Amino acid sequence: MKRIKLTVAYDGTAYSGWQIQKNSNTIEGELAKCLKDLLEEDVRIIGASRTDAGVHALCNIAVFDTLSRMPGDKFAYAMNQKLPEDIKVRKSEEVPVDFHPRQCLSLKTYEYRIVNAAIANPTRRLYTYFTYANLDITKMREGAAYLVGEHDFRSFCTVGAQVETTIRDIHSVSIDREGEEISIKVTGKGFLYNMVRIIAGTLMEIGKGNWEPLYIKDILRSGDRQKAGPTAPASGLTLIDYKFF
Amino acid sequence: MKRIKLTVAYDGTAYSGWQIQKNSNTIEGELAKCLKDLLEEDVRIIGASRTDAGVHALCNIAVFDTLSRMPGDKFAYAMNQKLPEDIKVRKSEEVPVDFHPRQCLSLKTYEYRIVNAAIANPTRRLYTYFTYANLDITKMREGAAYLVGEHDFRSFCTVGAQVETTIRDIHSVSIDREGEEISIKVTGKGFLYNMVRIIAGTLMEIGKGNWEPLYIKDILRSGDRQKAGPTAPASGLTLIDYKFF
Repeated sequence: MKRIKLTVAYDGTAYSGWQIQKNSNTIEGELAKCLKDLLEEDVRIIGASRTDAGVHALCNIAVFDTLSRMPGDKFAYAMNQKLPEDIKVRKSEEVPVDFHPRQCLSLKTYEYRIVNAAIANPTRRLYTYFTYANLDITKMREGAAYLVGEHDFRSFCTVGAQVETTIRDIHSVSIDREGEEISIKVTGKGFLYNMVRIIAGTLMEIGKGNWEPLYIKDILRSGDRQKAGPTAPASGLTLIDYKFF
Repeated sequence: MKRIKLTVAYDGTAYSGWQIQKNSNTIEGELAKCLKDLLEEDVRIIGASRTDAGVHALCNIAVFDTLSRMPGDKFAYAMNQKLPEDIKVRKSEEVPVDFHPRQCLSLKTYEYRIVNAAIANPTRRLYTYFTYANLDITKMREGAAYLVGEHDFRSFCTVGAQVETTIRDIHSVSIDREGEEISIKVTGKGFLYNMVRIIAGTLMEIGKGNWEPLYIKDILRSGDRQKAGPTAPASGLTLIDYKFF
C-alpha cells in the first residue's frame, strides 16, 4: 500500500464545497468518483482544507492510500482524463504513509480579490467580489496590521463551529491594488471557519471609512462575532498557496 | 433625438458572439432586449467590433439613437439593472449624432492569453487557452516583429469573409510571460475575420519550435491561409482596449 498526495486546483463556482455530501456536487466527491473509476478501489480521501461552497483553490491538498502499482506522478495525468474541466490535479506524488495533511506543520495563503470600480467586470465576476464603494487601502493595511500575530479570533469565526481553541496565528496580511482589483492575502498555519471571509468583510468596512483601523483591536478584544464585519461572499476567495514543513 | 455611446464588457462564454441572430443568445441581442424594455422603443444598435462566439470584451463600443430624455451617463446604471450578470455597460455617454464607431479613426487592442504549464488551471479555463507545450516567448517576439506595419494579411484571415481589402496595419504586438500565463497583445486600426486568433495560433507554432520566426515573412508573402497556424480557440481572446481619435 502507498499514500498519494494530490495538489488540486478547482473553480468552486459549481460545487457545494470540498467535503463529500449526499446529493450535492463536491470536490472531494468528484475526486472519489474519479479514483473509484480509475483504480476500482474505494479510497478514503483526506483533504487539507475543507473549502466552502463557491470558494476556489489553486493548490488544495488531498491524500489517499491505494494498492495500485501506478507511479505516484502518473495519477495526475490519469485523473485529469476523467475529472470535469473545473477540477484539475496539478501534481501527484507518493508520500510516506504517515503523512497527514492536517496534522503536519503547514502554512496556507488565502487570497480575497475585490473588483473596486464604478461598475462590475463580467469577466471577473466568478473570482472576485464587486463593490463600487471606494476602498482606501492605506487604512485597510493599517487595520490589517492589528490582525497579525497570535490572537483569539473568536470574533472572526462563524458561530457554531466546533473547535478546541479559537486562538490562531496570522503570519501576514498583505493588501495591494492592481488596476481596479484589490487583493488581500492572508497567510497562517490555520484558520477558523469563515475567518478569511470575515477578515475581508471587516477590512472592507475600514476601507469604506465606516470604521477606524484601530477598531480591529476592539473587535479582537470583544470576542463578539457581531462586532466584526459581514462574511464576504465566497466567489472572491481562493486558496492560493500551501506549504508543508 | 440623441445618440448614446455604450462601453460594454462581457464574458462571451455563454454567447454566440456579438451580432444579433435568431434563436441564439448574442450580446447585441441582450442589449437590444434591455433597451426595448427600458425605453419602450425599438432601437437599432451599431456595434464597433462584432466579436465571435466565446470571445470576451472589456470595452466593446455600441451606439444607438433614442428619443428618451434620460441623461447619457444614466443609461449604464439603468441598463445594468436589467442585463444578465455576464454583460455590463461600464460607461454611457451622449455623443454627436454623426458619431459612427466603425467609420471613425480608432485603435483597438486584443489580448490573447495562454496558460502555459504542465496542467491547466481550472480558474482560468474560460479566459485563456491552455497548452503544456513549452513556448519560447523570445522566438514568438521575433516572429511577431515581422507582423508589425502595413501588410496584406490575406493568409491570416478565415477564407470566405467579404472585405474590400485584406491590407491591414498592425501598430504593435507585445508578448509577455506573467507566471504561468503568456499574454499576446495586438494593437491596430482594424483586423480581418479571425486575424488575431490566427496570429496567436501561428505565434504558438513558432513558440513550440515547429517553425522559425522568419517563416512569418513567407506566410505573409504567400497570401495562403493554409500556410499560417491554426485559429486559436475563442476563449483566450479578449478585446481589452478601444481608443477613438
